[in-house]
Amino acid sequence: MNETKIVNTIRLLSVDMIEKANSGHPGMCLGCAPMIFILWCKIINFCPNKPLLIKRDRFILSNGHGCALLYSILYLLGYDYSIDDLKNFRQIFSKTPGHPEFNPKLGIEASTGPLGQGIANGVGMSIVSKKKGINNFIYVMCGDGCLMEGISYEAASLAGHLGLNNLILLYDDNGITIDGKTDITFSEDVRGRFKSLQWNVLDVENGDTDLEDIYSKLICAKESKDKPTIIFVKTTIGYGSFYSGKSSIHGTPLGTRDIKSLKELFGFDPEKSFFIDQDVKSYFLELKEKKEKYWIKSGFSLEEQDHPLFTSLLNTEIINCIRNIKNGEKNYSSRDSSSIVLKKISELLPNILIGSADLAESNKTMVSTILSKNDFTGKYIHYGVREHSMCSIANGISAFGFLPVVSTFLVFITYCLAPIRMAALSKHKVIYVLTHDSVFLGEDGPTHQPIESLTILRSIPGLLTIRPCDSTEVSSAYQIALEFNGPSAIILSRQVLTNIDKSNIDEMKLGAYIIYENERKKDNEENMKLDWIMVATGSEVSLAIEVAKKYTEMFIRVVSMPCCELFDLQTKEYKNSILPKNIKKISLEAGSTLGWYKYVDYVYGIDTFGMSAKMNDIKDYYGFNVEKICSFLSIH
Amino acid sequence: MNETKIVNTIRLLSVDMIEKANSGHPGMCLGCAPMIFILWCKIINFCPNKPLLIKRDRFILSNGHGCALLYSILYLLGYDYSIDDLKNFRQIFSKTPGHPEFNPKLGIEASTGPLGQGIANGVGMSIVSKKKGINNFIYVMCGDGCLMEGISYEAASLAGHLGLNNLILLYDDNGITIDGKTDITFSEDVRGRFKSLQWNVLDVENGDTDLEDIYSKLICAKESKDKPTIIFVKTTIGYGSFYSGKSSIHGTPLGTRDIKSLKELFGFDPEKSFFIDQDVKSYFLELKEKKEKYWIKSGFSLEEQDHPLFTSLLNTEIINCIRNIKNGEKNYSSRDSSSIVLKKISELLPNILIGSADLAESNKTMVSTILSKNDFTGKYIHYGVREHSMCSIANGISAFGFLPVVSTFLVFITYCLAPIRMAALSKHKVIYVLTHDSVFLGEDGPTHQPIESLTILRSIPGLLTIRPCDSTEVSSAYQIALEFNGPSAIILSRQVLTNIDKSNIDEMKLGAYIIYENERKKDNEENMKLDWIMVATGSEVSLAIEVAKKYTEMFIRVVSMPCCELFDLQTKEYKNSILPKNIKKISLEAGSTLGWYKYVDYVYGIDTFGMSAKMNDIKDYYGFNVEKICSFLSIH
Repeated sequence: MNETKIVNTIRLLSVDMIEKANSGHPGMCLGCAPMIFILWCKIINFCPNKPLLIKRDRFILSNGHGCALLYSILYLLGYDYSIDDLKNFRQIFSKTPGHPEFNPKLGIEASTGPLGQGIANGVGMSIVSKKKGINNFIYVMCGDGCLMEGISYEAASLAGHLGLNNLILLYDDNGITIDGKTDITFSEDVRGRFKSLQWNVLDVENGDTDLEDIYSKLICAKESKDKPTIIFVKTTIGYGSFYSGKSSIHGTPLGTRDIKSLKELFGFDPEKSFFIDQDVKSYFLELKEKKEKYWIKSGFSLEEQDHPLFTSLLNTEIINCIRNIKNGEKNYSSRDSSSIVLKKISELLPNILIGSADLAESNKTMVSTILSKNDFTGKYIHYGVREHSMCSIANGISAFGFLPVVSTFLVFITYCLAPIRMAALSKHKVIYVLTHDSVFLGEDGPTHQPIESLTILRSIPGLLTIRPCDSTEVSSAYQIALEFNGPSAIILSRQVLTNIDKSNIDEMKLGAYIIYENERKKDNEENMKLDWIMVATGSEVSLAIEVAKKYTEMFIRVVSMPCCELFDLQTKEYKNSILPKNIKKISLEAGSTLGWYKYVDYVYGIDTFGMSAKMNDIKDYYGFNVEKICSFLSIH
Repeated sequence: MNETKIVNTIRLLSVDMIEKANSGHPGMCLGCAPMIFILWCKIINFCPNKPLLIKRDRFILSNGHGCALLYSILYLLGYDYSIDDLKNFRQIFSKTPGHPEFNPKLGIEASTGPLGQGIANGVGMSIVSKKKGINNFIYVMCGDGCLMEGISYEAASLAGHLGLNNLILLYDDNGITIDGKTDITFSEDVRGRFKSLQWNVLDVENGDTDLEDIYSKLICAKESKDKPTIIFVKTTIGYGSFYSGKSSIHGTPLGTRDIKSLKELFGFDPEKSFFIDQDVKSYFLELKEKKEKYWIKSGFSLEEQDHPLFTSLLNTEIINCIRNIKNGEKNYSSRDSSSIVLKKISELLPNILIGSADLAESNKTMVSTILSKNDFTGKYIHYGVREHSMCSIANGISAFGFLPVVSTFLVFITYCLAPIRMAALSKHKVIYVLTHDSVFLGEDGPTHQPIESLTILRSIPGLLTIRPCDSTEVSSAYQIALEFNGPSAIILSRQVLTNIDKSNIDEMKLGAYIIYENERKKDNEENMKLDWIMVATGSEVSLAIEVAKKYTEMFIRVVSMPCCELFDLQTKEYKNSILPKNIKKISLEAGSTLGWYKYVDYVYGIDTFGMSAKMNDIKDYYGFNVEKICSFLSIH
C-alpha cells in the first residue's frame, strides 16, 4: 500500500471538510497528516468498536483547531462517524464541532482548543495510567501556541519531576503562529527547555514526507525508561498549498483554486471531494479487523473504563464522621471539617487523587500518602505552585476514570479558570476545595481576599458552587459533589464556624432551605407575616441567625443557600415556600453582590476590594456584625 | 560600619513586625535580608524624598509575602514610613499591609502576593525603560513559588526574546516551599531553563553572609549587553531561627523564645524590639543624603514620572474618525470600528504600547509598527500566545507611565484573570480589547464562545466593562477608558453590527441611556405608559430595536447599557428616568443572565455553553431573533 496516498487522502478529506464548512484551520491539517497517520495506523492501541477499553492508548489533540484532521482519521479508522458527519463539519448538532469536545466513544479523549490544556490533560492521564499499572501510552500533539502558554511549562515540569515515561508529546514544529513566524516572539531554545525539565528530546527533520522517521522516533520514545518524551517534528504549515509555510494558511479555507491545485499535486482527481479510493478503504478495513483481533488475542483485558462510584457505604460513612464532629463540643473551620470528611472519602474510594498547589497545610487536604516518581501508590499529589496545570491535570485524571480533588485559595481561581471552564464544558467530575473564602481571612489583605470569586464560579454553566455554613453542610457538600455529573467547587472558611442546630444534610441538597426562624415578640396580630427573609451562605449563616435572634421586634427567617445552582433546579412550589413573594428578602454574603438580585430585593455584601487587618476589624469595617445588620434591616 | 549588623537589624525589624502582628512570613525575611541590604544600599538608584523620579531604578518584590523585609528597609532608607508604621504591620488602615500594595511614593512599585506576577510586571517596566531610553534597571526578587508559576516562564521567554538586559532577577534559592522541600515537586534544572530562554545565569553560593559576592554578581548583571540576568542566591529560609531551613518557618511568627535566641545569636539585646542602634541610624542618614546629592550632582533629570494624558485633541480626533465611519454607508463589526479608533489613538498618544496574544489579525489591534529586540521605537508588541504574562506585563507598563492596550478573545480572560484583578486593585490604566464577544462568533464552538465572561468582568471591583453597540459607542468606549483611573475592558463583536441612529457618545458616558422608543399603535389612552423596557448591550441593541420596531402593539423603550459600572454611579433620578419603577424590564444579552437581575425583572440570555454552528443557526437556536423575543414579551 502506498502510504503517502493514505496521508494525502487524510489531508484532502480535512481540507474538503474545511472548504465545505467555509470555516476551519487547514494549515495544521496539511502539515500534521503524516504524524496522525503513523500514530493511529502504526502506533496507537485502540479498538474502534470498543472505544472505551481501559487499556487503550489515549490521544489528545492539544492544538484542537486542527480537529478536521482528527475527525478524518477517526472516520477512516471506523469510529462512529459517517462521511456525512465529515461533510457537516462545524455545523449545528453535528458530531464534528469546530474544536474537539470530550467524547471517548467517538475517540475524543479531551476537549481542546484553548491552547496548552491538552498537554496538562495528558499529564493527568499519564499519572492515572501509571498509578493503575496499565501498560499504555498517552500521546499528545501540540503546536507552538501550546508551548508558549505557561500551562505547558508547568505541566511539563511536573511530568519531568514524576518521570512520566508513558507520556509522548509530538510537537508540530512549523515555525508559524497566527501572527507570523514564531521568531517574532518565540526564539527560545525549546529543546534546551525540555531537557532542563527532564524530558527526552527527539527530532524528526522532515515531518512532511519522512514517515519512517516519524515511526522510528515514536518507537524510540516508547522505550523511554524514566522520562517523558517530546518529539520535534519539523513540518510545513499548509503543506502543498499556495500558502504553504505562511501564517495566512492557519485559519482560512484554501479556496477552490488552491484545493484543485493541491489535489492535482497529490495526483488526485481535482473534481472530486471527500474522495477515498478503494485501496485506501481496504487498508482501513483491514486495520480495523486487525485491531479487533489484537485485543482479543493479546489476552488484554476487555474491561471498559469506569468512574468513581458514589456508594451508599460512602454516604453513610461521610454522615457518620460528621456526626462525630457535631456531637462534640468543639467548633471547626469548614476547612477543618472538610479535612475530616475528605480523609474518610480518601480511605474508602480507591480511585481518588487529591492534591494542592503548595497549600496543603492551609487547604487541609493532605489526608493521604504521597504519590511520587518511584511510588505511584499514594493518593496525594504535590502539584507545586502550579494552579493552572493542576486544574487541567485534574481534567485528565477525571477523563481517565479517577476522581481528582484539587485545592488552593479561593482567590486563586483567577490562575486556573480556563481548566475549570473546560471541566464544566466536558462534565468532568472534579472537586475544587477552595479555602480562605472571604475577607475574613484577615491580615493577608486584598491580594488574597476573594470578593468576586463566588460570582465568577456561579456564572459558569455546569459547575456547582457550594459554600457550606458548618460541618453538617460540609458533609452534604461532599455528598453533592460526589453525586454530581460535573465539577463542583466547595468553598471553605479559614476561620472557625459555629455549628448550627438545624443545618441539614438532605435539605441542603435542594440548594437552599430554612435554617432558622425567630420568635417575634408577641403582638396583637394573629397571622404573623414574616418581616424579613435573610438569605445567607457559609460563615454568614450563623451571623444571620444571630441577627434574627437578637432582632425580635421583627419576624425573621434565615435561609441557608449553600448552592444557588441546585436551588434553581427545584420546583416553583419549593422555591416559593422558601422565598415567598411579597416578603422583603436580603442576601448576606461577604463578597460581590452582583449575582444576588436574582433571589432577593436587598443585598448586603462587599463590592470593593478587601484590606489587610485583623478579622474582627474587617468585620466591623464592612459592617458584618449584628448591630450594623440590624440597623440596615430597621431602615429598609 | 559593620554591614552584618545592618543586615541583622533589618532581619530583626522584620521579625519584630511579624511578631507584633502575630501574622506574617518570617522565613523569607531572615533569608533575603542580605540581598535587600546590598540592593538598596549599594545598587539601586533612588531618592527617598523624590520617590517618583522617572529615572529611578525599580524594585519589585515578587514574593510579596516577605514584605516586612521591604517595609523595614524602606523605613530605614527614609521613605515616608515611621517606626509606628512598622509596628502597625498588617493592621487596619496601616501603610504596611500584609502584601505590598502599589504605591510608588512609598517605594512600592507593584502590588504583589499572587506568585509570579512581579516577574512579568518587571518585564513590562523593562520594556518601557528601554523604549524611553532611560538608563536604569529593573530589579525583581522572587522565590521558588514565582518560578513554578507558568506566568514566570511566559514572561521570561519574552524577556529573553526581547533581550531585556536591564532586567535583573534575584532568585531566593532556598529549596523550601510551603509544603516542604522544593524537591517534592520542583526538580527541574532551573539554570538550564533560563539559559534556554536566553538569560544570563549567575550564582551566589552563600547568600546568608557573603555580602560581597551578592554585590559583585549584581555589578556583573548590570553589565549584560543583550540578555536579562537571573542570579541564583542560595539562602537559608528562616536563617538563624530554631526552624531555619524548614518549611514551617515560611508563614508563622517565630514566637518569643525563638526571637530572643535570634537576637542573642546576632549580638542584640534580646529584651529590645524594633531596635536600631545609633551607628545604623547614622549609616542610613548618610546614605539618604548621598542619594539626594547624587541626583542633583549627576545632572540627572529630576523629571517625575507622568502618565498618558487624555487631551481634548485626542477627544476630538476620536470623534472625527468615527464620524467618518458613521457617515459612510458601510456597517462595521465593532472590532473593526475599534481598529480605526485605536489607530488614531496610537498616532496621537506618544506613550502607548499595543499588543495581542497572537491574535492581532482577529483582534484588529496591529495598528502601529512593531517593537523588537533591536528597535524599541515601535508601539506594537507581539506578546505571543501568552495571555497571562501579557496582562501582567501590561500592569508593569502602566506602572511605568505608559498606556498598555492588550488584546485577545473575550473567552480567554480565563487565562489572565489574575493580572486583570491586580490591575483593578492597583488602579492601573490598562485597556483590554476583547473581541469575539458572544456565541455569535459561530463555528469555533463552545471552547471559544463566551457565556460567563461579561459577568466575570463585571464582578471585579474597579474594572469598567464596556460593550458598545456600534461604531459611535466604540469611540465613546475608548474615551471612557482613556479617562478612567483604572483598567477597562472593551468588548467587541466579530460580526458586523448595524449603526444605530441615536447611539450617543456623551449619553453613553452615563453607562446607560435611551436609544430608541417605538410609536405604539394609537389607542384611546392619553397618557401612554410603557409596556416594556428592553435593556441591551453590544450586538443585542440593534436586535432590541428591531423587536421594538416590529412589535408596535406594545410601547417599548430600548435602553443601551454598555457599562453597568458607570450607570451604577449615576443619581437616583437619572437611574429612575431610564429605568422607572413599575414598568416591566427585560435584559437582552447573549450570555450569562446572573448579573442582570440587578436592573431588570426578566432576563433573556444564554446560561448554557454555546455550540459550533453558523451564526444564524446559533441565533435561531438560542432564540436571538425578533420572532422569539416578541413571543417572549407577549406571554410575560
